[in-house]
Amino acid sequence: MTFLRNHLQPIKGYTPGEQPPPGSSILKLNTNENPYPPSPEVIKVLQSLDLEWLRRYPDPTARVFREAVAEIFQVAPAAVTVGNGSDELLALVMRAFVEKGARVVYPMPSYVLYRTLAQLQDAVPYEIAYDECFTFPLDSLIDAQGAITLIASPNSPTGHVVPISVLDQLAGALKGILVIDEAYIDFAQVGGANHGLGVEPQNALSLIHKHPNVIVLRTLSKGYSLAGLRVGFAIAQPELIQDLNKAKDSYTVDAIATLAGTAALRDQAHKHQSVQKVLRSRPILQKQLADLGFRVWPSATNFLLVQPPSGILAIDLQQSLKQQGILVRYFDLPGVSDKLRITVGTDAQNDQLCRSLQEILGAASLKMAT
Amino acid sequence: MTFLRNHLQPIKGYTPGEQPPPGSSILKLNTNENPYPPSPEVIKVLQSLDLEWLRRYPDPTARVFREAVAEIFQVAPAAVTVGNGSDELLALVMRAFVEKGARVVYPMPSYVLYRTLAQLQDAVPYEIAYDECFTFPLDSLIDAQGAITLIASPNSPTGHVVPISVLDQLAGALKGILVIDEAYIDFAQVGGANHGLGVEPQNALSLIHKHPNVIVLRTLSKGYSLAGLRVGFAIAQPELIQDLNKAKDSYTVDAIATLAGTAALRDQAHKHQSVQKVLRSRPILQKQLADLGFRVWPSATNFLLVQPPSGILAIDLQQSLKQQGILVRYFDLPGVSDKLRITVGTDAQNDQLCRSLQEILGAASLKMAT
Repeated sequence: MTFLRNHLQPIKGYTPGEQPPPGSSILKLNTNENPYPPSPEVIKVLQSLDLEWLRRYPDPTARVFREAVAEIFQVAPAAVTVGNGSDELLALVMRAFVEKGARVVYPMPSYVLYRTLAQLQDAVPYEIAYDECFTFPLDSLIDAQGAITLIASPNSPTGHVVPISVLDQLAGALKGILVIDEAYIDFAQVGGANHGLGVEPQNALSLIHKHPNVIVLRTLSKGYSLAGLRVGFAIAQPELIQDLNKAKDSYTVDAIATLAGTAALRDQAHKHQSVQKVLRSRPILQKQLADLGFRVWPSATNFLLVQPPSGILAIDLQQSLKQQGILVRYFDLPGVSDKLRITVGTDAQNDQLCRSLQEILGAASLKMAT
Repeated sequence: MTFLRNHLQPIKGYTPGEQPPPGSSILKLNTNENPYPPSPEVIKVLQSLDLEWLRRYPDPTARVFREAVAEIFQVAPAAVTVGNGSDELLALVMRAFVEKGARVVYPMPSYVLYRTLAQLQDAVPYEIAYDECFTFPLDSLIDAQGAITLIASPNSPTGHVVPISVLDQLAGALKGILVIDEAYIDFAQVGGANHGLGVEPQNALSLIHKHPNVIVLRTLSKGYSLAGLRVGFAIAQPELIQDLNKAKDSYTVDAIATLAGTAALRDQAHKHQSVQKVLRSRPILQKQLADLGFRVWPSATNFLLVQPPSGILAIDLQQSLKQQGILVRYFDLPGVSDKLRITVGTDAQNDQLCRSLQEILGAASLKMAT
């Protein structure tokens, strides 16, 4: 017996990456957390928190946070809404703009949650395959004319950026909403990998002013090292934000997340430093993995998409690493089921990964030789 | 131009009570926060928090919290799911079990969010009016056979409890889901006001084991003084919880809320003490208000439903109090638009309220006399 709505019964739901608790000796390179701690300003907020903030309901509009976003990103506070991670905002976009049976369009592979959310909404997940070079399928995306179209840029698990001029063209050609999910934008520096499409200012905020159908999503989970705090935000024209807020629950960002998130956001210098450290480690890890025989894709993010040396299955390698206490991400999705997504850790963590890989690959080649 | 779904366009959305920031001199008696601070264990969690908990994603199932619930309320951890306040769980119940056009049934007046959530879901809010004695409309609720039926017990803004035997009968007679929203249960002591229906163990957890269609909702916002933290939980048979989780976003309860919420929940002694203080103040305030000429309803909660002396409109009185820096709640709803809902504060706060009321009522009677 089930009371569940019909369309939900076959859904498996979103399976998040494994999350062992802090304190375990597991090396987590599976869910793209920043390896460096958040701003010390966050600690100050926690240690000096007036309990009144907990006793009372939070400000449902998280005004102080929106004002910080407005100041830093040069938009109006009314152009911002805050969510429990950008995940809540993705779910909200579906609930606000997607009718039952409507088309939710996104390239594949991309963030797996898009499919789950479309299914939960009883919409039609309309997936457009990237080719093997991850060429952006602009024409097919336009032809599909989704009620909403979701583009992660930089994209996961591929690591590439979609140029702003292309997103601009897409926004103008779509009748529905275009969501640009910039979860990894802090790692996408000018001059980073954008697949030969030229160097451009690599964030989509400029498109907001031009297109009434564009929503840009950001998160504090990656660049700001606050995945545990659950704070994301959406920027769009105020009319669109107002419509989004109609469908939003009141108090999803708690008082601590609002205050600590604001402190982290205002400490851009700290974020910049920790991002720079990751960006210094990334090419080192790329080279180490290439030297071990991996094919390594260019990355504008804090992770690498890699293909193991021939004869080694990605899923087997993931399991072997897990036995050694190292988690990396495997996706059973078209185009990447022969690859792994590995978060860039500290140099020491990356070295540990490479030593384990060397050991595993050595044993495998020994086995193949005998 | 709007991209909003058709059924959402006429919706106004839920309007939460005003939330002035801590530090302002406003006396907040409008949203039923506990006037006493949360457990000191919460402070300890905040002051000793390992930043690793913030850098990493939280446990999506909030295992440590569910285990605490399981231990304290004598249920299996699999019978529990955690939400961003019970508000998230209410929204989740709608999304999991309510098809478009289905009937969402609840007595009126009750928690205003029920109507908003039904509208957001494109369902039919089916409201059954309480009579003027707030007699529980059992037969009408059964006849209505909602896809889900929502009963707040104790109810807001009326303050009364629905006896467990009646809820038991309702659960057995409904084909759909029965949600029992026990947000205020910590203030409903045996022997409290249950409108002449006899003294009973006043919480609905015993019904879980008997009825596969019952979901009991709890929150840390009231008894535990943690409205700012956003933690609620649902208890039901594991099959029902599993179905609910299918439709749930992964990480809605952040790492701090999980840890601090667990600490608060495990400090039952602190909660009991702060509840006892409120329960000692409640009859004093009841008498003070009655002496001022108010009609005061019995209450099993931390608020009082009151009707101003004749000749004074509830909404006018609310505005006059606001001018004096005191917020109380007015609802433009059938059956209560001539009444106010006033949170029980500390004795000092209640005295301040009564002094203001005396002043306002004195001026009004002077005005009437001239």
